[in-house]
Amino acid sequence: MSFSGAESFRKSSPVDTEWIERELSAFLERARSQEESRPIVCVTSGGTTVPLERNCVRFIDNFSKGTRGALSAEQFLKARGMVHCAGYSVIFLSRTGSLLPFLSECQEDMATAFSVSGPGELQVSALAEALRTFHSCTEDPGTFLHVPFTTVFEYVQYLEVIARRLASHGRLALFYLAAAVSDYYIPWAEMVEHKISGAGPLVLELQKVPKLLGELTSVWAPHATVVSFKLETDEEVLLTKAKAAIQKYGVDAVLANELHSRKERVTLLVRAGEGRAAPIHCSVLRLDPSAPPGSVIEEQLVGAVVDLHRQRSRR
Amino acid sequence: MSFSGAESFRKSSPVDTEWIERELSAFLERARSQEESRPIVCVTSGGTTVPLERNCVRFIDNFSKGTRGALSAEQFLKARGMVHCAGYSVIFLSRTGSLLPFLSECQEDMATAFSVSGPGELQVSALAEALRTFHSCTEDPGTFLHVPFTTVFEYVQYLEVIARRLASHGRLALFYLAAAVSDYYIPWAEMVEHKISGAGPLVLELQKVPKLLGELTSVWAPHATVVSFKLETDEEVLLTKAKAAIQKYGVDAVLANELHSRKERVTLLVRAGEGRAAPIHCSVLRLDPSAPPGSVIEEQLVGAVVDLHRQRSRR
Repeated sequence: MSFSGAESFRKSSPVDTEWIERELSAFLERARSQEESRPIVCVTSGGTTVPLERNCVRFIDNFSKGTRGALSAEQFLKARGMVHCAGYSVIFLSRTGSLLPFLSECQEDMATAFSVSGPGELQVSALAEALRTFHSCTEDPGTFLHVPFTTVFEYVQYLEVIARRLASHGRLALFYLAAAVSDYYIPWAEMVEHKISGAGPLVLELQKVPKLLGELTSVWAPHATVVSFKLETDEEVLLTKAKAAIQKYGVDAVLANELHSRKERVTLLVRAGEGRAAPIHCSVLRLDPSAPPGSVIEEQLVGAVVDLHRQRSRR
Repeated sequence: MSFSGAESFRKSSPVDTEWIERELSAFLERARSQEESRPIVCVTSGGTTVPLERNCVRFIDNFSKGTRGALSAEQFLKARGMVHCAGYSVIFLSRTGSLLPFLSECQEDMATAFSVSGPGELQVSALAEALRTFHSCTEDPGTFLHVPFTTVFEYVQYLEVIARRLASHGRLALFYLAAAVSDYYIPWAEMVEHKISGAGPLVLELQKVPKLLGELTSVWAPHATVVSFKLETDEEVLLTKAKAAIQKYGVDAVLANELHSRKERVTLLVRAGEGRAAPIHCSVLRLDPSAPPGSVIEEQLVGAVVDLHRQRSRR
């Protein structure tokens, strides 16, 4: 298998990864010192940008605010300390400024964060409670590491650093790839120095971002369980593409969702057996319409993925 | 002069403008009932998006957070009620979710908004004070109207509605165009329905957004004073382009700024006389390095623009 596309993508943009190597070492050491067999998940979240100029004024972006990733990371963290449950260490690779676990509701809605307690007085207990929970994770050694990215170049290279490092955790490692990663990019060498301008129409030639999922499953962390996401706006192509991700890149499962129904309904496709040609099992996860307010479908997504990881890591 | 480009741009995307017509009518009626000769400024702020798909997952965006526009609107609003000063009504046409006047510092920095007053207790007086000032403007009839936009289609069509309506205010109307408007767009007719995908490279053909400044100064609101902004990353082309905006589109002045120095230094170019061939006067506005903390260059920008508007509206 050739990764020349990946190689040229990597070379096409200058990204500093030294700081994350350092933070990751310290984090994993703390996680291990607590419990040798603690499972660890890398949750990716939010959209990547594709710069159009080196002195970047304009970029291609994605609508994602990181809701799925933040709510899912919460579920992995909630498992911590409970009986018979996974107790994951979470590496949260998310877009700068996107939503954070436990804080997303307050980040999105001031009316959740604050209420008025009297004339000129704000009641901040909802925000304080959310912050308390968030900090109980970030301050618990080896439990939560936040790695923020902005561009697609940063995302891919940070993910590679994390994956190669987690390779030594073998089957205890899980990748839950909820980030909305651009499929296209402009190589640094072809990028203009200054803000694009000119009289006529603009033709942008974007290269395909190499599908690094294949590298992740076969080279970077071959024993890890890898679950990727597929989002489409066209229901008809969604499942076909989701299956192709399993067959082409050898991921263990795909969570397939359609833009408009993504908060209520997600299809889980699981590779049932070894090898890329193994049969694929489909099941539909739905948010129960009678569930109490505040319920989110991520409880079911993470529940199903944790079960899958448990089976896979027992093999 | 032909505006066929403008016509085809307008037709290329479905935008509802009825709600803004309604809000604008009510706002202008309240503003007029207070004082017949009250000047009125339309401040535009933040970046526009360019959707790449009709079911929009991806879009081109701009780095702008709307700092310049928010801080400038503040300055126009601060003039309210002071002796010998303009007392502007402000229409704030800004990107959804971008910074707001008086609130921008708290929006950007939680450490400004909140401080800790005791164990488990938050001091919220900075945020409360900012909200008080903001609401004193929004609740003062005819003083502040917020019109949010997201796409470049919405921006252009909302601006046209506002400008045509302000035409009846003649020389009392001022346009202060700080928004970072995309120069390129994909026409609705050429836009794909669903999320772009495919195996090969992606070629995006973007059309030039018609320069609507010429329509604004000559058709929509011909007696208004119009001040536009020019941002470049290359100092060498900045002033040439700024002059061209005066000569081509007949704006009264351009505030020219370079990406990296834009918070400390802005060049003001003013058309000194009638007609597009009139001489152009240049002056450099700088933030005084010894100014007290919290000082912003927008004080000088708005001061200079208010002076210019006063001269122009006396003609």
